[in-house]
Amino acid sequence: MSRSAKLGALKIGIAGLGTVGASTVKLLHQHADMLAERCGRPIRVTAVSARDRSRDRGIDLAGIAWHADAMALAGDPEVEVVVELIGGSDGIAKNLVEAAIAAGKHVVTANKALLARHGTAIARAAEDAGIALGYEAAVAGGIPIIKALREGLAGNRIQRVYGILNGTCNYILTTMRQTGREFADVLAEAQKLGYAEADPSFDVDGVDAAHKLAILTSVAFGCEVNFAGVHVEGIRHVSATDIAFAEELGYRIKLLGIARRAENGIELRVHPTLIPERRLIANVDGAMNAVLVLGDAVGPTLYYGAGAGAEPTASAVVADLVDVTRLHTADPHHRVPHLAFQPDQMSDTPILPMEEVRTAYYLRLHAFDRPGVLADITRILADCEISIDAMVQKEPAEGDELVNIILLTHITVEKNINAAITKIEALDSVSGKVMRIRLEELAAK
Amino acid sequence: MSRSAKLGALKIGIAGLGTVGASTVKLLHQHADMLAERCGRPIRVTAVSARDRSRDRGIDLAGIAWHADAMALAGDPEVEVVVELIGGSDGIAKNLVEAAIAAGKHVVTANKALLARHGTAIARAAEDAGIALGYEAAVAGGIPIIKALREGLAGNRIQRVYGILNGTCNYILTTMRQTGREFADVLAEAQKLGYAEADPSFDVDGVDAAHKLAILTSVAFGCEVNFAGVHVEGIRHVSATDIAFAEELGYRIKLLGIARRAENGIELRVHPTLIPERRLIANVDGAMNAVLVLGDAVGPTLYYGAGAGAEPTASAVVADLVDVTRLHTADPHHRVPHLAFQPDQMSDTPILPMEEVRTAYYLRLHAFDRPGVLADITRILADCEISIDAMVQKEPAEGDELVNIILLTHITVEKNINAAITKIEALDSVSGKVMRIRLEELAAK
Repeated sequence: MSRSAKLGALKIGIAGLGTVGASTVKLLHQHADMLAERCGRPIRVTAVSARDRSRDRGIDLAGIAWHADAMALAGDPEVEVVVELIGGSDGIAKNLVEAAIAAGKHVVTANKALLARHGTAIARAAEDAGIALGYEAAVAGGIPIIKALREGLAGNRIQRVYGILNGTCNYILTTMRQTGREFADVLAEAQKLGYAEADPSFDVDGVDAAHKLAILTSVAFGCEVNFAGVHVEGIRHVSATDIAFAEELGYRIKLLGIARRAENGIELRVHPTLIPERRLIANVDGAMNAVLVLGDAVGPTLYYGAGAGAEPTASAVVADLVDVTRLHTADPHHRVPHLAFQPDQMSDTPILPMEEVRTAYYLRLHAFDRPGVLADITRILADCEISIDAMVQKEPAEGDELVNIILLTHITVEKNINAAITKIEALDSVSGKVMRIRLEELAAK
Repeated sequence: MSRSAKLGALKIGIAGLGTVGASTVKLLHQHADMLAERCGRPIRVTAVSARDRSRDRGIDLAGIAWHADAMALAGDPEVEVVVELIGGSDGIAKNLVEAAIAAGKHVVTANKALLARHGTAIARAAEDAGIALGYEAAVAGGIPIIKALREGLAGNRIQRVYGILNGTCNYILTTMRQTGREFADVLAEAQKLGYAEADPSFDVDGVDAAHKLAILTSVAFGCEVNFAGVHVEGIRHVSATDIAFAEELGYRIKLLGIARRAENGIELRVHPTLIPERRLIANVDGAMNAVLVLGDAVGPTLYYGAGAGAEPTASAVVADLVDVTRLHTADPHHRVPHLAFQPDQMSDTPILPMEEVRTAYYLRLHAFDRPGVLADITRILADCEISIDAMVQKEPAEGDELVNIILLTHITVEKNINAAITKIEALDSVSGKVMRIRLEELAAK
């Protein structure tokens, strides 16, 4: 009997079907099998709540209970976990989370404003009720930074946290640097492209970053969530002039959330910050987020990824739900599986032989500088169905009659390159072995 | 009554007291209070085993049982978790892990060779015995990458993993690029500095990286640990010439471990790789490690930190032990606390007022180009006890009689800068407001 049969499905109710809610439903549906293979039990959406039932969200809600009032999720006996994706620091989101905790239901939320303002009380209530409170999605989107701080770095006394926590600001500052344009101009463009809201103040004045920093600081330092204690400055006053001068001096300007243990207390601040361009975090560009953590044992570690967006945020929500599937029992078979998937659900996907690997190549060869050499080489590559991305011939060193020829290829299959190299090395005009180094563009997708 | 009293100490036995073992003992001792505040129970070293009892390791072993034979840890009733830090893919390390599992003891190990070669069988045995198997320390040192893949990204079908997994190789390649020197020369220096072993083949021929890649691939894709399936090439043949040519073309050369889902199987390979220099992972320099993961929902995420070293590795070992403290019971009070520390153990460290924050500053001011302006400004800064790191005066734009003066200060306290800015703005020769942007060097420590 499969271990998956031991516990039934984890039943979840989702409040809020905006882009994150819809993506969460999609992800749970699309990866239903994989999640069961990880958790040893399925995760099933049993109920949802949103304002407009008729809207087409591109998701199938057949067989899922619909509650016009989100608060009904807290009372639904078919819901074990309430996923709060409504947003807002007060009102319905707060009422729902409190009601869910009171009803003994686990809570997963992406609501940074709620936790920044009421996180200590909500966490305390959840501890008292013995329920799970997952909020990975509330900070830095899909980056598992809460888990890293709360668990992965648990052996450290955390000294400092530096975060690029708002994608809109980072997009604007990156574009200002790359184009030399001013804030207002780039903001207007970001609004057109959907990277900034019509009312951008929540992002560009640093409030959103401060929400996330308040949460991170509590988890890093074990203190209460203190949004009111964060000094907040946004990026409206950063000029193209300052970005250009900073760059001349070797610095980039980023909106940074900073939490630092000092002698007499904790520094807690969000403001534009010059960072040396040689630091990894200074090179986090566009709408991406990153968090640099300094622990006393591990030293610096950095976590980078998409800080917003429907799918990355849904990724974090689902990770929290997977954690909840592992809390219900002391049964070791419902813990985190050692190799990530249940032992009876391991994949047997084969390893490809090296000849079948697909990648691009850097080739360097030593050739006599004679007419026809390049023609011979390009002919061989064409015959092997390899297309050339770039070719450079280097002048020989003095007294050397051999030139270095460097070729970058587009992606091809390794066996074709092997064949081409054999033929190239057989040319009279080529001396010795061809140097071959594989090349990966690491494009986002 | 404190919740800490609910369960007694977690009792651990450590096999192997090299630098990692000694650091683990130190870290557990130094952070005993903090760990109890996180876990709700202490973690206590009850037994150790190493070859030489007389050696001074800078740690206090009073009150800790000493076993001359590591195998005795598996039979010690005062040991609940066996921490295997002996190393080696077979022999005593393997025997001890197997005996510990058979005895129903949890296992934490930093042993990449063991898991690369026997990981599937060991994980299976541990699952069957219902015990925990922690091996965060086996891959990428202190970076919590196993936790990220196994838990934090559990909502994703992982598509690709790219890792800089060997610090020695990355140090050598970085130094070769920065200095233009050849492999043999830089290796010899790395050996002198302790960055490379006397017999470097395990590192520079890619075997160590392949061990780690084999483990990562299993956790990422849910397949068996398949070290034999990894195509391995090291960095001995990478020349200064190729590094320089790659750089001219906009690429860096890194020893990369690559696991990629392809159409018909998994690509699994370790080899020198050209990467566009604009990618974040191309800028991971020196002995640091990084892992870039592509998930289908979250997109690209990257994890960076120290991949080796006694303290970073001990950080990962302790994180695994903290996880074990949370497995012993279904009691919700021994789960991961929502705000990282037990609710009755929250710190009340105050938030510093902004005036007390210490940082460096970029100041830009608009001044009339008259004799004595710089003297006035530097006098004010000196009076406010602010020392200057750099000062640049920019020629005025045509028709403008004002010049931009840019100052970078060393670290000072915010109230001093406030006072200085007020005085500078009061100068007749200075026009308008002083632009102030804070500056953080983000040095490693």
